[in-house]
Amino acid sequence: MGENRSSYTSLAKTLTWQDGFLTLLDQTLLPGEVVSERQESIGQVWDSIKKLKVRGAPAIGIAGAYGVLYGIKDKTDLPVAEFLDQLKKSAAYLDSSRPTAVNLSWALHRMVALAEMMVSEKQSVDSVIIYKLLEEEAVKIHEEDKIICRNIGLNGKGLVKEGMGVLTHCNAGSLATSELGTATAPIYLAHEDGVEFRVFADETRPLLQGARLTSWELQQSGVDVTLITDNMAAFMMSKREIDLAIVGCDRVAANGDTANKIGTMGVAILAKYFNIPVYVACPSSTIDFNTDTGDDIVIEERDPEEVTFFGERRTGPEGIKVRNPAFDVTPYELIAGFITEKGIIRAPFRENLIKTFT
Amino acid sequence: MGENRSSYTSLAKTLTWQDGFLTLLDQTLLPGEVVSERQESIGQVWDSIKKLKVRGAPAIGIAGAYGVLYGIKDKTDLPVAEFLDQLKKSAAYLDSSRPTAVNLSWALHRMVALAEMMVSEKQSVDSVIIYKLLEEEAVKIHEEDKIICRNIGLNGKGLVKEGMGVLTHCNAGSLATSELGTATAPIYLAHEDGVEFRVFADETRPLLQGARLTSWELQQSGVDVTLITDNMAAFMMSKREIDLAIVGCDRVAANGDTANKIGTMGVAILAKYFNIPVYVACPSSTIDFNTDTGDDIVIEERDPEEVTFFGERRTGPEGIKVRNPAFDVTPYELIAGFITEKGIIRAPFRENLIKTFT
Repeated sequence: MGENRSSYTSLAKTLTWQDGFLTLLDQTLLPGEVVSERQESIGQVWDSIKKLKVRGAPAIGIAGAYGVLYGIKDKTDLPVAEFLDQLKKSAAYLDSSRPTAVNLSWALHRMVALAEMMVSEKQSVDSVIIYKLLEEEAVKIHEEDKIICRNIGLNGKGLVKEGMGVLTHCNAGSLATSELGTATAPIYLAHEDGVEFRVFADETRPLLQGARLTSWELQQSGVDVTLITDNMAAFMMSKREIDLAIVGCDRVAANGDTANKIGTMGVAILAKYFNIPVYVACPSSTIDFNTDTGDDIVIEERDPEEVTFFGERRTGPEGIKVRNPAFDVTPYELIAGFITEKGIIRAPFRENLIKTFT
Repeated sequence: MGENRSSYTSLAKTLTWQDGFLTLLDQTLLPGEVVSERQESIGQVWDSIKKLKVRGAPAIGIAGAYGVLYGIKDKTDLPVAEFLDQLKKSAAYLDSSRPTAVNLSWALHRMVALAEMMVSEKQSVDSVIIYKLLEEEAVKIHEEDKIICRNIGLNGKGLVKEGMGVLTHCNAGSLATSELGTATAPIYLAHEDGVEFRVFADETRPLLQGARLTSWELQQSGVDVTLITDNMAAFMMSKREIDLAIVGCDRVAANGDTANKIGTMGVAILAKYFNIPVYVACPSSTIDFNTDTGDDIVIEERDPEEVTFFGERRTGPEGIKVRNPAFDVTPYELIAGFITEKGIIRAPFRENLIKTFT
């Protein structure tokens, strides 16, 4: 680090686990208010995930892992079989809060699988011990995410070169993960190395994660960031102000097709037109080898009022028809590479993803 | 018209002139409230243009032509020379309300030029007669715009076919003109003919003309319209829900490069990727043969707060850097044709625009 500059370490923590309680930074209040909220029940965690107080695939996975503990923490007097049942019920309940995020299912499945393994392998195990080990597992999921983000940052930071303009979409940032983010990890580490570059953050309608979250966290961390509306990206590219795009991902199919926040495919098509490379920052947990191509990914459609309202202010007319797909699928051929914790994966993606991760 | 359906004729009129008074639909209150406001003074007209109560290049021109009459209507007892002075002063005053709007200057210039011609050519003319003829000229400007829009509609409606999905961006609609609009004219006339099709309206950040105005006027007219955020257009195209895009234009260069509301170029690039034709609805007054290519078009950057605020609600963090270009320039090679009052102009545009309009 060549000079004293503010960095991602000064950011409010997205999630913390302390004394058996999960505390979440309420992202629905950003950037106006920085409020952290201790979760008191599994219902509250479900609600926090549903209402996007915590969002971003990795962060949701971590919240799910901690959240499921709320469903069992006062049930440790139950016999092991019933305790396991309670765990499964809690996991299924939390899993229903966001259907598209693969990390949530993944984390919940990992928690349940661990408990099942313990029950089947150890005669003497009791519910108290299982709870204890599940809590350790959730902490481990949390810690692993920090390491994954750091490795994505280390593997990707070389892409961010002096003088570049870097576009990002939505928030695959520190706020979407434990720390450092995925798409932002190369940005934070290049910044820490003293590289001078500019970031453009798409505001990302309808929920404005780019305006509210990405531009906030980059600004807080001292990164040179400029906010634009989604429909200005093409203009910035045409003026050669953007040299590189880094986005996150919600699910990557076996062939490299990538589901991410609505608008990502548009960014990738525009970038292709202007010969700008698009990299997907991709923790390996997001790769779903059971999904063959993007055609198999079901796209969640969300509440129409996200489009017709802005806070309490109505923007579209009463009764107007609305579409509100939350994600789109970027075809693999528009992607220059996947920045993963194991390095940058380049085409042919199907072969190279399998080779690296299975 | 195959069935009884509501149409653009049921819309509240953008501008009306009756008994010497101009009435404007206050577009700043749409879509929440439909309020028409009779203008009582030239100062009020200036203010209505300034505050975007009336907006859209053709509509502003018409409002200016009527508006200037307020400056002279109780001065008809003045001698002709003083009356002409008063007219010029009124025109200069109104012209200052939106300095970049070409149609406003054009309409005011036309009014002043007519009066000057009359004074210089006729000895016997008096101020009362001049006022009368200026009023007729303003009505003529208004009527001419209706005819131009109608002819654009007639020339373009064949593009809108049964079962199609049609994308439009911003508002080049009835609310931007006397009636029918430019980009919406083919839509309204195809609808009137009983063609069944769907329209997708991009909300058009930052000022949301698509959400507030286009989706409102199409909905009011019984057209099947769906509101989407700008970054959903690629998704809709990828799902083959969009077969055609029709947009307006602010200025067309001699080679066909087209300046229009920010985001238009993005729509055109996406459409190209998905092989969807993009037509520009273009009154010939918008073609600027003095501008050789889009590179010569200066892009206005507007107030950053349009991007960081929504009404009174802040969306971007305090102190964030913002870019806010109001327009972009779509390269001519992305345009399938210009729908003009004289027919659809196809490539090569430079030759065919000159052939048709000079």
